[in-house]
Amino acid sequence: MAERIVVALGGNALGNSPAEQLLLVKNTAKPIVDLVEKGYEIVIGHGNGPQVGMINLAMEFSAGKVGKTPYMPFPECGAMTQGYIGYHLQQAIQEELRTRGIHKPCVTIVTQVAVDANDPGFQNPTKPVGSFYSREESDRIAEEKGFVFVEDAGRGYRRVVPSPIPKRIVELEAVNCLVASGAIVITVGGGGIPVVESPEGLRGVAAVIDKDRASSLLAQDLKADRLIILTAVDRVCVNFNKPDQRELPSMTLAEAEAYIGQEQFAPGSMLPKVQSCMEFVKNAPAGSTALITSLSRAADALEGKTGTILTK
Amino acid sequence: MAERIVVALGGNALGNSPAEQLLLVKNTAKPIVDLVEKGYEIVIGHGNGPQVGMINLAMEFSAGKVGKTPYMPFPECGAMTQGYIGYHLQQAIQEELRTRGIHKPCVTIVTQVAVDANDPGFQNPTKPVGSFYSREESDRIAEEKGFVFVEDAGRGYRRVVPSPIPKRIVELEAVNCLVASGAIVITVGGGGIPVVESPEGLRGVAAVIDKDRASSLLAQDLKADRLIILTAVDRVCVNFNKPDQRELPSMTLAEAEAYIGQEQFAPGSMLPKVQSCMEFVKNAPAGSTALITSLSRAADALEGKTGTILTK
Repeated sequence: MAERIVVALGGNALGNSPAEQLLLVKNTAKPIVDLVEKGYEIVIGHGNGPQVGMINLAMEFSAGKVGKTPYMPFPECGAMTQGYIGYHLQQAIQEELRTRGIHKPCVTIVTQVAVDANDPGFQNPTKPVGSFYSREESDRIAEEKGFVFVEDAGRGYRRVVPSPIPKRIVELEAVNCLVASGAIVITVGGGGIPVVESPEGLRGVAAVIDKDRASSLLAQDLKADRLIILTAVDRVCVNFNKPDQRELPSMTLAEAEAYIGQEQFAPGSMLPKVQSCMEFVKNAPAGSTALITSLSRAADALEGKTGTILTK
Repeated sequence: MAERIVVALGGNALGNSPAEQLLLVKNTAKPIVDLVEKGYEIVIGHGNGPQVGMINLAMEFSAGKVGKTPYMPFPECGAMTQGYIGYHLQQAIQEELRTRGIHKPCVTIVTQVAVDANDPGFQNPTKPVGSFYSREESDRIAEEKGFVFVEDAGRGYRRVVPSPIPKRIVELEAVNCLVASGAIVITVGGGGIPVVESPEGLRGVAAVIDKDRASSLLAQDLKADRLIILTAVDRVCVNFNKPDQRELPSMTLAEAEAYIGQEQFAPGSMLPKVQSCMEFVKNAPAGSTALITSLSRAADALEGKTGTILTK
């Protein structure tokens, strides 16, 4: 049986504009298809921070300031990024597969991820999205739409949305079916379109689900053998950016807990990656491991040459 | 074996704003799930005219006039609509299924549709998209980006894009796999993201593929038993809007040809729907039929109570 790997792509695998993204995804496709060529089953999660920011900004400008297009809610902007990023990513991977003579479909599934309506994150929104506003504008919009704004480092006021914990991947069954059939599936884009259960069914909420946590849930649900979180560095470090910085080739769950106790990992950066890996390793069958490394070294890391491996 | 039906949804099944669309898709979901409940296998294609127009406009305003977000090419805007519409549509259908106690996945596949780079449509762009410009602005943009503009009924100059014939559904294999597994699949949104084959792989092109033609190709490729094109009227008429208007309960291919010769069907409206049905019936196994009717009467039409059925 082929080993099944969920790969979470970081922002550096995509780009800040369509032209840049179209170039970057070609580079992203190569190490991904290297893994396919080595016989691994690959499922891909990815972030959407810059992309959902861009779409949300354009929609706000056009609706609020130019006034010709309707107001676009945040979860709908997230759904748009899944189409936009998925299109570029699947096209690049399809081409890389074709070039190497590998016959395998690669497709994107529009994916909702359910969160708990009582998630404490909803009481404490922290993720900044959209434009900068003056105090007066932000007060007016807050009154009108119930948004929460925070002052952002002297640059003005910016809307913040919560980052709740992913609970259920709504389209899991279809993802599972495609993965089992041999397809490379792109899913939980941007952490998934955030929805809550309501008596009338699922309802989109303005939130950003951490893409590493969503990919970890995906890996657990798909009974993946491995979760790989790709980031800007080859290995997790302790004493990061200090004279005694040290790369970690591996961590057990207990070691990871201890490092977290020492505040070794930056919140909003390495911390959720390590925690997502821990969640996976805790809940996965014995022998399953998680790996944090860079995109370009992913294949090397699987051979133990680099990366930080997390084990039970 | 369950009868397999490809349903092409018209613009009236969706809406012009996110709020409107979220309401309309709930109504759209009911007749769709009626068909599922009767035991049919359902695959859904849909248009994206107002939606891609809206997104393209917002992106143009924000990039060209406010200047904070990057220029967004037309095929990427189409990819966004697949995420945006697919999200609403699958959510509404999932809820309708849940309410009726039917266990079936419903998902959207981001779908590219390849067209011929030498399609005569590229020599004669006809589909207006995006904002209105002055003569001077449109000349400048035409020079800068190579776009084609036409004067639009005294309202200014508007970009036009070609409407080439769909040749190949790139993600067909995954769609087929999901349909065979019992899922309701939403695909070829907006006629598909238009791409041409190039030595470097697929490349997005600024074009709009007719969603009925794309749905017809989908029905042929999936060996569907039936293609249903949903529109604003219950039946196709001859002498439409004239005193001797007559509803057609059925047409053979030869009769359809004759009506087309008499210019009975409006180009850009009923004509491509009839032609898409003809293409399907011509290329499908004996006994396959196509149906043109309204969304609300779809189930009745399948029982022969209304609709226009097209047979060999």
